[in-house]
Amino acid sequence: MKSLAILMFLGLSGLATNAAAQSWQPPSPSERCPSKWGAGDERGSGNHMTPANVLRAARQIKTGETFELSHVLGRDMPINPGRQYDLHTKRSTGPFGSNQRYSNEELIVSEIGQVGTQFDGFTHQAIDRLLYNCINMDEVATRSGFTKMGVEKVGTLMTRGVLIDIAGLKGVDILPIDYEITVADLEQALQKQGISIQPGDAVLIYTGWSKHWGVDNKLYTSGCPGIGVRAAEWLIKQDPMLLGSDNWPVEIAPNPDKTINLPVHNIALTVNGVHLLENLVLADLAKARAYEFAFVMQPLKLQGATGSTVAPTAIR
Amino acid sequence: MKSLAILMFLGLSGLATNAAAQSWQPPSPSERCPSKWGAGDERGSGNHMTPANVLRAARQIKTGETFELSHVLGRDMPINPGRQYDLHTKRSTGPFGSNQRYSNEELIVSEIGQVGTQFDGFTHQAIDRLLYNCINMDEVATRSGFTKMGVEKVGTLMTRGVLIDIAGLKGVDILPIDYEITVADLEQALQKQGISIQPGDAVLIYTGWSKHWGVDNKLYTSGCPGIGVRAAEWLIKQDPMLLGSDNWPVEIAPNPDKTINLPVHNIALTVNGVHLLENLVLADLAKARAYEFAFVMQPLKLQGATGSTVAPTAIR
Amino acid sequence: MKSLAILMFLGLSGLATNAAAQSWQPPSPSERCPSKWGAGDERGSGNHMTPANVLRAARQIKTGETFELSHVLGRDMPINPGRQYDLHTKRSTGPFGSNQRYSNEELIVSEIGQVGTQFDGFTHQAIDRLLYNCINMDEVATRSGFTKMGVEKVGTLMTRGVLIDIAGLKGVDILPIDYEITVADLEQALQKQGISIQPGDAVLIYTGWSKHWGVDNKLYTSGCPGIGVRAAEWLIKQDPMLLGSDNWPVEIAPNPDKTINLPVHNIALTVNGVHLLENLVLADLAKARAYEFAFVMQPLKLQGATGSTVAPTAIR
Amino acid sequence: MKSLAILMFLGLSGLATNAAAQSWQPPSPSERCPSKWGAGDERGSGNHMTPANVLRAARQIKTGETFELSHVLGRDMPINPGRQYDLHTKRSTGPFGSNQRYSNEELIVSEIGQVGTQFDGFTHQAIDRLLYNCINMDEVATRSGFTKMGVEKVGTLMTRGVLIDIAGLKGVDILPIDYEITVADLEQALQKQGISIQPGDAVLIYTGWSKHWGVDNKLYTSGCPGIGVRAAEWLIKQDPMLLGSDNWPVEIAPNPDKTINLPVHNIALTVNGVHLLENLVLADLAKARAYEFAFVMQPLKLQGATGSTVAPTAIR
Repeated sequence: MKSLAILMFLGLSGLATNAAAQSWQPPSPSERCPSKWGAGDERGSGNHMTPANVLRAARQIKTGETFELSHVLGRDMPINPGRQYDLHTKRSTGPFGSNQRYSNEELIVSEIGQVGTQFDGFTHQAIDRLLYNCINMDEVATRSGFTKMGVEKVGTLMTRGVLIDIAGLKGVDILPIDYEITVADLEQALQKQGISIQPGDAVLIYTGWSKHWGVDNKLYTSGCPGIGVRAAEWLIKQDPMLLGSDNWPVEIAPNPDKTINLPVHNIALTVNGVHLLENLVLADLAKARAYEFAFVMQPLKLQGATGSTVAPTAIR
Repeated sequence: MKSLAILMFLGLSGLATNAAAQSWQPPSPSERCPSKWGAGDERGSGNHMTPANVLRAARQIKTGETFELSHVLGRDMPINPGRQYDLHTKRSTGPFGSNQRYSNEELIVSEIGQVGTQFDGFTHQAIDRLLYNCINMDEVATRSGFTKMGVEKVGTLMTRGVLIDIAGLKGVDILPIDYEITVADLEQALQKQGISIQPGDAVLIYTGWSKHWGVDNKLYTSGCPGIGVRAAEWLIKQDPMLLGSDNWPVEIAPNPDKTINLPVHNIALTVNGVHLLENLVLADLAKARAYEFAFVMQPLKLQGATGSTVAPTAIR
Repeated sequence: MKSLAILMFLGLSGLATNAAAQSWQPPSPSERCPSKWGAGDERGSGNHMTPANVLRAARQIKTGETFELSHVLGRDMPINPGRQYDLHTKRSTGPFGSNQRYSNEELIVSEIGQVGTQFDGFTHQAIDRLLYNCINMDEVATRSGFTKMGVEKVGTLMTRGVLIDIAGLKGVDILPIDYEITVADLEQALQKQGISIQPGDAVLIYTGWSKHWGVDNKLYTSGCPGIGVRAAEWLIKQDPMLLGSDNWPVEIAPNPDKTINLPVHNIALTVNGVHLLENLVLADLAKARAYEFAFVMQPLKLQGATGSTVAPTAIR
Repeated sequence: MKSLAILMFLGLSGLATNAAAQSWQPPSPSERCPSKWGAGDERGSGNHMTPANVLRAARQIKTGETFELSHVLGRDMPINPGRQYDLHTKRSTGPFGSNQRYSNEELIVSEIGQVGTQFDGFTHQAIDRLLYNCINMDEVATRSGFTKMGVEKVGTLMTRGVLIDIAGLKGVDILPIDYEITVADLEQALQKQGISIQPGDAVLIYTGWSKHWGVDNKLYTSGCPGIGVRAAEWLIKQDPMLLGSDNWPVEIAPNPDKTINLPVHNIALTVNGVHLLENLVLADLAKARAYEFAFVMQPLKLQGATGSTVAPTAIR
């Protein structure tokens, strides 16, 4: 709290970093496997997708108002280095028949599961070559996908969604690039918003960082505010279906502890089997104070893929 | 009825074709434009996506049971000639940090909007180089997509869905490849099922043809049973949000009238601005006699694309 | 001459532009077709590829010294907007057999005929939709290449090559971006070098512009010095097998006459059926004063393609 | 000879297999490294590319007659499983300027270094994850190519070429699919043809198997006649620049010894650093009895690639 006071004095709106507390070591395979969903489980937090949860979500629908939570996929979007998104309009074919029908299609060349608003499956990340549930990635990887835990096995996810507006809590449009969201932030925001997290929720965290999307792409991908190790661990204790945010890795990047690299990816996906959802569009939700809603997302059934570009929706 | 009697005599399970009645001529541009949704409209039947319609759909959700309506996308799926779907696992990167994080992604090269279970936008088809609402396709086509009516503008579609089980009506597992579904078939099936079509519905027609998917891909794409000109015109009069089926073009193919080519594509997309949804998985719905449900589909926001591969869901 | 005097005064080594003289109008189809090689000809200047010409080239080989005339194809090369070059290493397969064999390959996604050092075929360019020999491009274009004049029909080109060192003539390392090479420049350089152009030669023009390659890619593709309309017409009168240069379009770009666009592409490829060869590496040739040599180039046999990325060689 | 007699009796034109003699074990790293070209060498048999060798080749050119040694690259060519070749014509751009210039290009998606007539570099194959000169493939592989021994470092290869016509020796159009070429075959053919192999030669072996190319692609890639372990070892003792053939792996496939897998790939590329050249077109050479010639080949300079699709030429 002391450093917070100092920062407020410095005009930084009460935002602080706490690199000192960051240090994290992955649990050993014997500590983390089998997962709480059982040996051999490939669904992780996707196991929350049950009729009861769908009904719980449906009960959130009261006005029929929908919020689109995804960005448009185009050449001018921010994209991680080494990834691409190219759409090539094909030459029209036709005319066919007396109806003079013409047909148009396009070829897309892209890491389509890992561009734009994207949903991470469990083959996306590993610790020391071991995936979620300690499956050795080299044993399940082929040239055309993974033989286990491919994203085609996830299916539609419909559950109650909650928005945690940290930018709003801090009174800023956009959190600073090096701001690590703390457990206290999450608790205070939930209290302020008058909601709580329930098991199986889709938990979406608003940072405002998405306001740089398409405006300053270089800045957007250069780093971002987000949850760190402690906040991720706290959130996962609430037993969510997934964790999402309006930044590119959900978590703060780079991590304040320079010795660890995107640790929340490992904590969520690899250790706990909790899905991540990145590059969300959440500004309209935050503005409308839509903190509870039915969350619906339909990952493409890309056989053996590590994730899926998605177009999720919030409905209330 | 006479030809039907003859066919029954021939042991063809009461299925008949009526090529004679098929002939169709596209309405002239002045007859079909502007569309009923107004000059300059780019949404067509997507205009049915309203809060009222979402609420109407949500009221269908009573048990939380979900049905996945899409096929898995893989190298062994049927695919139209000239299209491809290739997923290339990228070499793993890592280890990063003291957490020894590894990362996996994949490159996909595909007409991703027009493979697998797919949703057709309005730039997909034209009559004599004119798209829906008589937009000249050459004026809106670029090398990287269309500047109007791209599929990114559609957004989530949630509405009441109805299944019309024609295979069930005819008492067959799979309709014959050359069976054209008639208006009478649709009316009888709806009556038998005790449901009716409401404006804004997602109308899904079950033919059983999907049972060839992945079993005999060559047969699957060689043709299929489906609605023809008359049934399409009748369905469109009911003012649906979209027409879908468990075959590759929704309509019968090739058309019994050999002079016209996939006319329902032009009738639905080009003339009336009604979306099509192809290669659906409907067998479980039919088996469960789930004839009414909430239909949810989230097309990817592929800028300027002619369609989107999708993973829609029925919920009841 | 007045502006030249001023430029010399300004220390620009006698380099001048002459926009006034640039204006060019394409000859009408009846004026330019059939080509001098006859109606229906698809080879144009490639008709110079004869045993006699090969022997003429072989006689240039006296020491066995070779010069590689092409750039390395990599992600850091300059590339025209809208084109791409991506090489994806595939996951290794193996081990196979008791010999524990592993295999590596890579997927390349690129306009491979039109990146790096590249050879232009006759389907690459048209005037008002008419290609070389007035073939209508829409009648020969398919989704997977052209049915006439594809680059697969060219084959190895081996002929006498000559280098015309204009940078050397002007005493500069690199010609200025807006310098248009004149007929007088060509004549003076040839005289200074003690060589003359013979029918069927590969004529390579050195500008020094390639020194920006990989050093300032943005500058490299932003424009370049090169031949203009008059010099191109003069060179084509010498009846060459091809015209090449160490810049991206062989010709000056943009053209000093702002109303015409890359006219030398039309003059060479479309009107006269003379191939172009772009992005050459010529600095070593110029430095070695290797003005005459055997020129060898092997376009890939890409069926129906508009050109081929190549790796030509000069041997003396 | 006994089995040979039996086979002749069976009308098989004197062709025999000798699986018994096949067994091969890769030499250990310490036995095979450093290579005869020295530790750290990345060029292997490419070190034969010297001015003296170019001159030796040039002396073979007496009439200027050329033979194209490569297949056309198109969708209907045989291709190894898991590889692809797709050429997508891009929409034309234009008109540009008062000259109404139009431009056409195409996107190619392919393992372009390993389709069609192809030249193998040293990163293509490994024994137990060790490449030529015992470089660990995992240490030099990146997502976008290899940091050592990429094919861009090879450059034009020009040397004396010799054709060894084994189909001719055996008096057949096409060798049987399971015919392993023996050392005796090679010696007899050379003697019959009146030529001998010199160090640094490009040695091309004619089997007739290419007559199945484009005629029966499934047969073409299902296996092939070719050299085995003994013939490969004998040829490599002659110190060639490369070994090529008109089949897809140069060597017999599958190997008669079922415990080893494409051993000649390891013997040539991995153990001895001798390049391979596959899917050649040699029928015209054989028919013309062109047994000695200048061989010229220009691999594309694909940075870090494992090989290059090529269009080599024989000139005499």
